[in-house]
Amino acid sequence: MHDPLLHYCLFLADSALILGHRNSEWCGHGPVLEQDIALTNIALDLIGQARNLYQYAASIQGGDATEDTLAYLRDERAYKNCLLVELPNGHWGQTVLRQFFFSTYQYYLFQQLINSTDVQLAAIAEKSLKEVTYHVRWSSEWVIRLGDGTEESKQKMEEAVDNLWSYTGELFVPAAYETPGFGVDLNVVQMQWQQKVAAILDEATLALSQQGWMQKGGKEGAHTEHLGYILAEMQSLQRTYPGARW
Amino acid sequence: MHDPLLHYCLFLADSALILGHRNSEWCGHGPVLEQDIALTNIALDLIGQARNLYQYAASIQGGDATEDTLAYLRDERAYKNCLLVELPNGHWGQTVLRQFFFSTYQYYLFQQLINSTDVQLAAIAEKSLKEVTYHVRWSSEWVIRLGDGTEESKQKMEEAVDNLWSYTGELFVPAAYETPGFGVDLNVVQMQWQQKVAAILDEATLALSQQGWMQKGGKEGAHTEHLGYILAEMQSLQRTYPGARW
Repeated sequence: MHDPLLHYCLFLADSALILGHRNSEWCGHGPVLEQDIALTNIALDLIGQARNLYQYAASIQGGDATEDTLAYLRDERAYKNCLLVELPNGHWGQTVLRQFFFSTYQYYLFQQLINSTDVQLAAIAEKSLKEVTYHVRWSSEWVIRLGDGTEESKQKMEEAVDNLWSYTGELFVPAAYETPGFGVDLNVVQMQWQQKVAAILDEATLALSQQGWMQKGGKEGAHTEHLGYILAEMQSLQRTYPGARW
Repeated sequence: MHDPLLHYCLFLADSALILGHRNSEWCGHGPVLEQDIALTNIALDLIGQARNLYQYAASIQGGDATEDTLAYLRDERAYKNCLLVELPNGHWGQTVLRQFFFSTYQYYLFQQLINSTDVQLAAIAEKSLKEVTYHVRWSSEWVIRLGDGTEESKQKMEEAVDNLWSYTGELFVPAAYETPGFGVDLNVVQMQWQQKVAAILDEATLALSQQGWMQKGGKEGAHTEHLGYILAEMQSLQRTYPGARW
C-alpha cells in the first residue's frame, strides 16, 4: 500500500467520473427535455467533483501527475470506482434509482468528511455537499414517482431494485486504503443510507430487496466487463493523440 | 491523391475489418449455437481478407507500415470503409440482411477483380471468393427464411430493408481513388447486385425499397457517429500500450 489518502481520493474521483460519464450518455435521450437537462447537470456536477479530487490526488502523487493523466492514462485495473457506477444505465428508472443509491451514499459520507482532519478532503466534501443534496432530492422524487406510478413503471422499478441491489454492499465495505478512515465511520454511513433508502422505497411502494449476497471488487480495481468499454471510449482521444490540448 | 491503389486496398480492407468487427459482436449471442458459430466464422473470414489487403497496402506504403499500424493507428477520417458496415447490428434479421447486401457486392466485385491487371489484388480476390460465395449463400438463406417466415419476422425484415437501403448506393459510386478501375466495371457490379438482390427479396416475399436518396461519404472518410466508437474499442489496447506484442 502506497499512500492510502491518494488511493482514497482516486476511489472517490473515479466513482464520480464514471457515474458522470454514464449519466452523460443520456444527454439528448431523456424522456422530457427538462429532465434530460437535469441529469446532464448532475453529470457535470459529478465530473466537477472528480476534477477537484483528481487535482488533489495529483498534488499528493507529485511528479508529472495532473487531473488529466489520472483520468485518461490509467487503465482498468488502476480504476477504483465502485461497481455500481459502471453498470449500464438500463432504462430511465434504473438510472434514477442508481443515482439515488449513489447520491445518498455520497450525502452521508460527505456529511462526515466535512469534519475530516484532512482539510482538503473536508473542503471538497463541503463544496460537493450542496450539489449532492439536490441529487438526492431529484433522484428520490423520481424513484417515488415511478415506483408509486403505473403498474408498468412499478414493475420496472422492482426489476431495477433487483438489478442494482447486490452492487450497493461494496460501498460500505472498507477497501484497504480506507483503513485510516479520514474521519469517516462507514458503519454510520451505512445505517443512515439504509434508513433513507428504506423510507424512500416505502414511499415509492417498493419492497426492499431480499438479496443478501453482495458484489465487490471495484474499489480494489477488479471490475465488470463494462468498465473497459467506458475507458476505451472516454480515453480514446487522449490515447490516439497523446498530449493533445485545446 | 497519393496512390489510388493504396487507397483502394484500404477501402476494401477497412470495409472487411469493420464488418468483421460488427459480426464478432454477435459471438456468444446468436439465436442458435450453430448460427452463432457460422456468423463468427464469417467474421473471421472477413478479418482474414482485411489482413491480406492490409499487408498488401503496407507493402505499397512502405516505411514502417504493417497490417497492424494500418488497422490500429489510423483515425476515423483515414478509414475508408463504406457506411453500411459500420451501422449497429440491429436485430438478427438486420444483421443477416446487411451481410447479404455486402457479400453480394463483394461477390460480383471479386469476380471481376480476379482478372485485374494487378496480380496481387487478383490473388486476394480469388482467395476470398470461395469464402464470399458461402457468405452469400448463408445470408440469402436467412433472408428468405425470415422474410417468408412469420408475420413478425417478415415485418422485422421489412424494417431492416428500410433501415439499410439508403446505405447500399455508396457501394456503386466510385470514390476518387477508384477511378483507375483496377479492372472493375462498377456499373456491371451494380446491375448484377440489383438482379441478385431483387431475386432473393422476391423469394423472401419482401418488397424492394422505394427509397431513391442514398447516403454517402464513408469511402471518402466521412463517417457516421458509429465508427468512432468502434475504433475506440478496437484500438484501445494498441493505443493504451503502444507497440504491445504477444
